[in-house]
Amino acid sequence: MAVVTKEVEIATKGFSDVHDITPLVADFVRELPFSEGSVNIFVPGSTAGVTTIEFESGVIEDLKDAFERLIPQAMDYRHDLRWGDGNGFSHVRSAICKTSLTVPFMANKPATGTWQQIILVDFDNGKRHRRLIFQAIG
Amino acid sequence: MAVVTKEVEIATKGFSDVHDITPLVADFVRELPFSEGSVNIFVPGSTAGVTTIEFESGVIEDLKDAFERLIPQAMDYRHDLRWGDGNGFSHVRSAICKTSLTVPFMANKPATGTWQQIILVDFDNGKRHRRLIFQAIG
Amino acid sequence: MAVVTKEVEIATKGFSDVHDITPLVADFVRELPFSEGSVNIFVPGSTAGVTTIEFESGVIEDLKDAFERLIPQAMDYRHDLRWGDGNGFSHVRSAICKTSLTVPFMANKPATGTWQQIILVDFDNGKRHRRLIFQAIG
Repeated sequence: MAVVTKEVEIATKGFSDVHDITPLVADFVRELPFSEGSVNIFVPGSTAGVTTIEFESGVIEDLKDAFERLIPQAMDYRHDLRWGDGNGFSHVRSAICKTSLTVPFMANKPATGTWQQIILVDFDNGKRHRRLIFQAIG
Repeated sequence: MAVVTKEVEIATKGFSDVHDITPLVADFVRELPFSEGSVNIFVPGSTAGVTTIEFESGVIEDLKDAFERLIPQAMDYRHDLRWGDGNGFSHVRSAICKTSLTVPFMANKPATGTWQQIILVDFDNGKRHRRLIFQAIG
Repeated sequence: MAVVTKEVEIATKGFSDVHDITPLVADFVRELPFSEGSVNIFVPGSTAGVTTIEFESGVIEDLKDAFERLIPQAMDYRHDLRWGDGNGFSHVRSAICKTSLTVPFMANKPATGTWQQIILVDFDNGKRHRRLIFQAIG
């Protein structure tokens, strides 16, 4: 049993910018010194989220529409009134989507389905260099 | 410390079909060669979710209503326009509910509360044989 | 590799009462006999949730507003009709927010960002002594 932790950086555009990070996670898992265990994907930050979806442009737009419908950008947020950041919607979306996801792996491959990808969603209101942490235990 | 992984298959009906999988998880945890650790429940697929709830038929209906109200089935989804699957709503619900849940266990028992059950929700638009992965580390 | 599990109790007020539990998690991680791994925060119960947010009073109110908008308290819930608990909204919010969060740590520090705090949200409709489980593997 061992722990392996890696940091990754991704350039994001914000406004529910969705990135398929499955290849990055798969590469990380393939090179581990152990074959079976779980990998946690964590975003250190309060305006992004991690989840899974079929990475297909139609449904990606559907997901963005859902976030906009449920937690609209153009509403009054107390966060914005107080700090003028204009990203109150980003914080609330992140808290609901959550910044952590754990995926098991076997034979050095993530257990995700064929049409299931691991995605980073950047909810912020501008460009970022987004830091991600991959941590495997196995 | 060790890792134990098991696959389970469940027949589901779709349309937010909710299954109490606590007994399956409890059986898995009881038979482990170690008594303390965490179990990850993961659905390999992009139209289901895993979470906890009180498994009581009233609140199960309330949860289904909430998903229907927040991410309605009868809306235009780009996924459906493109692929004709008719399950755009299933994908979006899954991405928001998420396909992974981690539960600690002690003395070979999941730490869930008395009125808290672990559920699989199948959001797809038809019957499935749904594969689940249970992975314990401890 | 080892597992360390700890129980914590917090007095909560309900109605989306938000508690910053980062200091409790950080204390737990600092005192571990290993420096690198992941900590799972789990609520044994079906009317609370765990997630991350910037713990700033404006955005905390925005989050509460979002839960009230998406899963209103003043609606008919079958759970309430059947059990008279009046906390149908609490159960549904908990199932969607989820009761589990995994956070990696390195050098005995949680990997959370500077403006990212770990929060317990008590969705119930009254005061509680809420039990939390912290479990570290590393």
